[in-house]
Amino acid sequence: MAPSAQPTAAMATFTRMVKGQMRCYSAPVDAAIPASKRKYIPTSGTYPKGFFVSGTHVGVKASNTKFPDLALITSETPCSAAAVFTTNKFQAAPVQVSKKILNATQGQGIRSVIINSGCANAVTGKGGLEDAMSMATKVDEYTGVAENGTLVMSTGVIGQRLPISKILSKIPEATSSLSSTHDAWLTTARAICTTDTFPKLLSQTFTLPSSPGRTYNIAGMTKGAGMIHPNMATLLGVIATDAPIVPSALQSLLKTSVARSFNAISVDGDTSTNDTVAILANGAAGGAPINSTQNDDYVVMQNILTSFLQSLSQLVVRDGEGATKFVTVRIQNSPDYPSAQLIASTIARSPLVKTALYGRDANWGRILCAIGYTQGVAPGTVVPERTSVSFKPADGSPVLKLLVNGEPEQVDEERASAILQDEDLEIIVDLGGGEKGELGGEEGVYWFCDFSHEYVTINGDYRT
Amino acid sequence: MAPSAQPTAAMATFTRMVKGQMRCYSAPVDAAIPASKRKYIPTSGTYPKGFFVSGTHVGVKASNTKFPDLALITSETPCSAAAVFTTNKFQAAPVQVSKKILNATQGQGIRSVIINSGCANAVTGKGGLEDAMSMATKVDEYTGVAENGTLVMSTGVIGQRLPISKILSKIPEATSSLSSTHDAWLTTARAICTTDTFPKLLSQTFTLPSSPGRTYNIAGMTKGAGMIHPNMATLLGVIATDAPIVPSALQSLLKTSVARSFNAISVDGDTSTNDTVAILANGAAGGAPINSTQNDDYVVMQNILTSFLQSLSQLVVRDGEGATKFVTVRIQNSPDYPSAQLIASTIARSPLVKTALYGRDANWGRILCAIGYTQGVAPGTVVPERTSVSFKPADGSPVLKLLVNGEPEQVDEERASAILQDEDLEIIVDLGGGEKGELGGEEGVYWFCDFSHEYVTINGDYRT
Repeated sequence: MAPSAQPTAAMATFTRMVKGQMRCYSAPVDAAIPASKRKYIPTSGTYPKGFFVSGTHVGVKASNTKFPDLALITSETPCSAAAVFTTNKFQAAPVQVSKKILNATQGQGIRSVIINSGCANAVTGKGGLEDAMSMATKVDEYTGVAENGTLVMSTGVIGQRLPISKILSKIPEATSSLSSTHDAWLTTARAICTTDTFPKLLSQTFTLPSSPGRTYNIAGMTKGAGMIHPNMATLLGVIATDAPIVPSALQSLLKTSVARSFNAISVDGDTSTNDTVAILANGAAGGAPINSTQNDDYVVMQNILTSFLQSLSQLVVRDGEGATKFVTVRIQNSPDYPSAQLIASTIARSPLVKTALYGRDANWGRILCAIGYTQGVAPGTVVPERTSVSFKPADGSPVLKLLVNGEPEQVDEERASAILQDEDLEIIVDLGGGEKGELGGEEGVYWFCDFSHEYVTINGDYRT
Repeated sequence: MAPSAQPTAAMATFTRMVKGQMRCYSAPVDAAIPASKRKYIPTSGTYPKGFFVSGTHVGVKASNTKFPDLALITSETPCSAAAVFTTNKFQAAPVQVSKKILNATQGQGIRSVIINSGCANAVTGKGGLEDAMSMATKVDEYTGVAENGTLVMSTGVIGQRLPISKILSKIPEATSSLSSTHDAWLTTARAICTTDTFPKLLSQTFTLPSSPGRTYNIAGMTKGAGMIHPNMATLLGVIATDAPIVPSALQSLLKTSVARSFNAISVDGDTSTNDTVAILANGAAGGAPINSTQNDDYVVMQNILTSFLQSLSQLVVRDGEGATKFVTVRIQNSPDYPSAQLIASTIARSPLVKTALYGRDANWGRILCAIGYTQGVAPGTVVPERTSVSFKPADGSPVLKLLVNGEPEQVDEERASAILQDEDLEIIVDLGGGEKGELGGEEGVYWFCDFSHEYVTINGDYRT
C-alpha cells in the first residue's frame, strides 16, 4: 500500500508525529506577565526614523487563537543589512534562505524582516526551504520590492512544516497595519516570543563624532528562553537603526558586538538550529556614512552597539526558562581573552554551579571545579596558587572573598547567604595573570541564570 | 588582633566556613537501599587471591555515627599498580600524593589503597598534603611496608580539612579487621559511598590464553553520584586482580579501558578534583606475567578489563543523582572515533535532551540540535542529509526510526511513548559515513542518565 492510498491513516500518523514533535510552549505572552518581570518592559521608546513594524495573529499553532505570532519590521527606504547565524550544522530553512538573500544582495537594498513564532521550520527538507522563501517573496510583493528585499526567521518546534497558507494569507494584514508607535513595536516584540514570559524590546538615542548635533536612534527586539548558548545564543534578534552604515562595516560591527553580548550568555548550554541576529540600517537620520572600520564614527558605533546588544541579550538571561537568578561571571587577569571566555562559559554551563546558585549556596568548590576542568584553555592560564574567587554583591557593598590565591577564606556565612538572596550576583574569578603572574591581563564575561525545578518542569514535564 | 588571639571567635568563623562548604550528603548508604536498586548489589562474588579488605567507621562527618567511611584494600604480597587521575587543574591532595607514590615506585611494590569518604581533602593547601601522606604512611606502618606502599583517595566536600587524628586512630582497626569474604568486600564498597544510594561492587573470573586451565579473578568497586563526567568520571574506583601484569603493561591496559568506560559516562557533565581509578595486580594466581603490550594475553586482558570497567562504570550512571533513566547513545558510521565520541558526549550533556528523557518525550529535534552544535568534530563528519536517528528499545523489539537521512519519519507516537517508559533506552545516531558516505566507520558510545527534579533538589536544596 502506498501511503497516498490511505490518506486518512497517513494523516492520522502525521498528526501523531506532529504532536510528538510539538513543543507545548507556554501560552504566548499575554497580559499575564509575571509581576517581577514587568520592570523590564519599556513604557515608551525612541525608534529609528523610517522604520515601521507590526505584530499580527496567524495561529501558527492551532491552539493560539488570539496572540500575535507574525512580526514584520520594514523600512520605507532600502537598508544596509547584516546578520549572524547559528553555527549548528542543522540549519533551519529560514537561516538558509536569509543567508542566500544576504549573499545575493551583499547586504544592500534589504527592506524587511519577517518572523513567525510557533514553528521553527527546521529539518523540514526542500518543502521547508520553499515555505521560507515564499514568506520573503510575499513580503517583497506587498512592500513593492522586486526581489531579495526580505530576511526570514522562524522560532518554535523542530521537524514540523509551517502552516504556510495561513501565514501567507496574513501578510497583507501585516503590511497594512505597519506603524511606528511604541505600542506597535511592543506588539511586534511580543509576536516573536515562544516560552518567553515577557517581550524584550529596547531603544535608545546616540550621537556620532562626525555630526555631534545629530540624533540617531537604535531599537532592537529579541526572544529567548530555552536552548540558549553560543554560538548563537538568542534564537532571534532584530536591530534597526537610522544611522548610515555601509554593509561591510555593518557586518563587522555586528559580528564583534555579538561576540561580546549574545555569544556571552547561557541559559542551558544548548544551541538552536534557528538562531539569528540581524541588523538593518536605513540611514534615515542622515550624516556621513560609516564606510570604513577605521574612522572615529566606527569606533564609537562599535561601543554603542556592543553595549546595546549586551543590554538586549541580558533580557534573554533574565527570562531564562525557570530562572530565579541573574549571574555575571567575570574572569580577570587572564593571559589571553579566549581562555578567559572559555572559563566563564564553563562556569556558566556547570549544572552543579547552577543548582548551587538556585539553592543560594556559596559553594565556591563547584566554581573552582569548573575552572579546573575547562577544556581548551592555554597552558599556564590556570594556576591554583594564583586563583582567587569572590562574590560581588548587587547592592554595591564590598566584595566577599571566598578563595584568595588558592587558599579558602574564612567566609562570613551569614553575609554570603544574604548576598545570595538577591536576584543579581557577580562572581569574580581572578586568575592572577596565570603562570607569569602579569596582572592587567584580559577579561572575559558571561551572563547566565540558575537551574531550577521549574526548568526541569518546563522542559521535561510539558507532555504530562 | 591576630586571629590566634581570639581562638573562640576564630573557631566560630571557621565552623561557619566549614558549614558553608559542607555538602550535606544524603545519609551514607545503609540498609535502606531503594528497592529498584537492590538488583545491582551482588549477593556473592569471586575475589582475587591474596587481597584483604575492610570498611571501618571513623565519623569523618560528625553526623555519621555508625556507617563505615574508611575503606582499606590490601594485598598480602606486593602488587603492580597503575592509576588514572582527574584532569582537573585543581587536584586534590590525595591525587597529588598518589601520583607521587606511583612515580617514586614506578608502580612496583604497592600493597594497599586507603580511602575515606565524607571529605575530599581538596583545596586544603600544604596541610592537606601532609594529611594525605600521613594516611598512606600509617597504613604502610600497619601492613609492614617501609615506605610508598599505599595509594590514597578521598571523596566528599571540597575546601575542608580532614579530621586526620580520627582517621589515623582508626587505621589499626582497619588493618586488624581485614578479611576476604564477600561481606567484607561489600562493606568496603559501602565505605567509599557519599550520595550513592547503593554500593557498587563487581567481581568475575577469567582465563588467559597462555594458561587456559588457570582461573584468574578480578574485582572492583566504585562510587559516583554527582559531579560525573570525563575526564575522569567516577570520582573513585579500585580494581584488584590476581593476574600477573607488569606495571607498564598495567598502566597501558588501564588507560585504554578507562577511555571506553569511566571516561564514556556522564551524569551532569562536571569533573571533580578527586577522580581516581587505580588497579592493583598481585599475580597470586600464578602463570606467565603479562609484560608486553604485544602478546596474546595482553589483548585478551584488554578486552576483559574494558568490559569489566564498562559494567562497573555503568553502575555509576544507574545511581546518578536523581536519575530515572539509563541511556546508551551510540554514534555509528563516523569517519573517525574522536568525532563520534565528542558527539556522543555532547548529546549526553545536553540539558534539553536529558530533561526530555526525564519527561519521556521522543524529542529527536533536541538530539539533532546537540549533534549539530558539537564542537571540535572533524569537518565533513556531520552531514544533515546522511544523518539518521532511532531508538532501540530495551525489550529487544525492532528499532523505532525517528529521522532517516535527514528526513523526519512518521513516528508511531504510542510506540515511542511505550519505549520511553522503560528505564533503559538506546539512542542510535547513524552519521552515514559523513561526507564520504563510507559505511563501516568508527563507533562512539556514551552512557548517561536524565535530569530530574530530584537532581535539582539534591544539588540545590540541601541547605534549606
